[in-house]
Amino acid sequence: MEVYFGQAIKNQQLYAQKKILEMLGDRLILDSWESSIGQGITGVCEGSILEKGVVSTSTIEADALPIAATQIRPFLAGLPFHVEGISIVMHPNNPWVPTAHANIRKFSVKLGSGENFKWYGGGFDLTPYKPIKEICQMWHRNTKEYLDSFDDRLYFDWKKQCDEYFYLDHRNEARGIGGIFFDDYIGHEIYDEKMIIGLIDLFFDMFFNITSTLMDRSYTDDDKKFQEWRRGRYAEFNLLKDRGTQFGLKTQGRIESILLSLPPVARWIYQGQERFSKQNAELMSALNMRSWIHEQEICEKV
Amino acid sequence: MEVYFGQAIKNQQLYAQKKILEMLGDRLILDSWESSIGQGITGVCEGSILEKGVVSTSTIEADALPIAATQIRPFLAGLPFHVEGISIVMHPNNPWVPTAHANIRKFSVKLGSGENFKWYGGGFDLTPYKPIKEICQMWHRNTKEYLDSFDDRLYFDWKKQCDEYFYLDHRNEARGIGGIFFDDYIGHEIYDEKMIIGLIDLFFDMFFNITSTLMDRSYTDDDKKFQEWRRGRYAEFNLLKDRGTQFGLKTQGRIESILLSLPPVARWIYQGQERFSKQNAELMSALNMRSWIHEQEICEKV
Repeated sequence: MEVYFGQAIKNQQLYAQKKILEMLGDRLILDSWESSIGQGITGVCEGSILEKGVVSTSTIEADALPIAATQIRPFLAGLPFHVEGISIVMHPNNPWVPTAHANIRKFSVKLGSGENFKWYGGGFDLTPYKPIKEICQMWHRNTKEYLDSFDDRLYFDWKKQCDEYFYLDHRNEARGIGGIFFDDYIGHEIYDEKMIIGLIDLFFDMFFNITSTLMDRSYTDDDKKFQEWRRGRYAEFNLLKDRGTQFGLKTQGRIESILLSLPPVARWIYQGQERFSKQNAELMSALNMRSWIHEQEICEKV
Repeated sequence: MEVYFGQAIKNQQLYAQKKILEMLGDRLILDSWESSIGQGITGVCEGSILEKGVVSTSTIEADALPIAATQIRPFLAGLPFHVEGISIVMHPNNPWVPTAHANIRKFSVKLGSGENFKWYGGGFDLTPYKPIKEICQMWHRNTKEYLDSFDDRLYFDWKKQCDEYFYLDHRNEARGIGGIFFDDYIGHEIYDEKMIIGLIDLFFDMFFNITSTLMDRSYTDDDKKFQEWRRGRYAEFNLLKDRGTQFGLKTQGRIESILLSLPPVARWIYQGQERFSKQNAELMSALNMRSWIHEQEICEKV
């Protein structure tokens, strides 16, 4: 099944490359690399619709699992491991189009007994600058519908983890409107592997759909500055909190790949929340939403 | 003497405000704040010569010293403390003018015995984008000359600490051409307090001198992009490594003040070192210089 996971994410990377070119007119350049601990294909787009788009796959194999890789199973730290993953971040140029991020990875750790201990991590989340209610609702509804078809406890569990993880404590702000996040998910190998891989297909469907709907909307210079200022938060999250970044820095991976999810441009403006008061207040009310699924629907299901 | 230190740094802040207006034509806005653990005056300039300038003073008093505040005296962690400091970062608009950073602070910790344990921390460093040999040499020579007049062991010790501290391990790059850095410096109170305060006067002399010499030089759009891309490194340092930032985040200080030293604009460009190969190679050769003091001079003194 490891061959299946590794091949599936490479196919998804090629699909994204094709779609970005055909639908957005931008080029995702694929760049292969190898290092002492792994190999990968870094896909980067610096285009006009996607100001910065990244769709990378990699395989890392090393002697000692860093503690950052497994918060709930510290006994695995220090053992030889193997990890395959795909990691995506889309920073569109137009401030109407949200930044979107996704990744999935499959870990395999060699136990002293010779057996492999396997699990998955990943998720996706959306960071709008000029939030549109229907789009935020669609993002969460489609995700819930997909996950419910496997197990109807997953969406609420993973949404909660997402809200907790993508939170900037130092700002008392959510990074975006969330989505799903799961770490250390074991599941049942054959059944869940397909479900996990399918999350990336769902992510692409939603992202390309949102982008084609919004990418031609007009915006002002001030909208663009607001987006760049909010992207400062994105950079803060990646450098201060992101576990993937911490993991990459600790395993001394390829720095150009580890820091690829950073925004193309970020601004820091003193008391920006006052300068952009109206736009920021609108955004904050979206970021503070606890549920994007209509309460009625939740009551019907639960 | 605590009154003296606190008053001296406030006078330096007012001096900077006056000088920025008269010499550069920009306005440093002073903004007072108070929180449960302290108070301060944040000085911010978002002008045309200084794209972002910060000259802030603050006093923090709290019940438990964070471990980040004292690497070499962990037994002080958790005790009530008082700290006064001035912190400066200048991000000029013109890429020919280096980014300059300085701070000094005086800590006082209340021991169980009722006595106060005091020490100083601080330093300054210079981050050029388009380095000019004579200016880098002047920066180090003036600093050495000033410190030698007190104790001729200080410059080499503090320069070494600066080179070690302002290093981005994940990039294998120095942040800039350095300067001086000292943490946990006890010294002799009356004598050293004046020397420490004088460092900020020296810093202002050198910074305003460099700025007025270079601020009218012409530059290209590409020079500006290169500067903004290099400022990504500055943001990485502040968020990943800066002890002041870590300290501020841990003491839950005022977030707008803690993150003020972040650059006004930062860019992350995939493999920027290839895109800006010539400019970056020139900069790298300056950042890799081990000494800016002529070897002959060092031999004469040592």
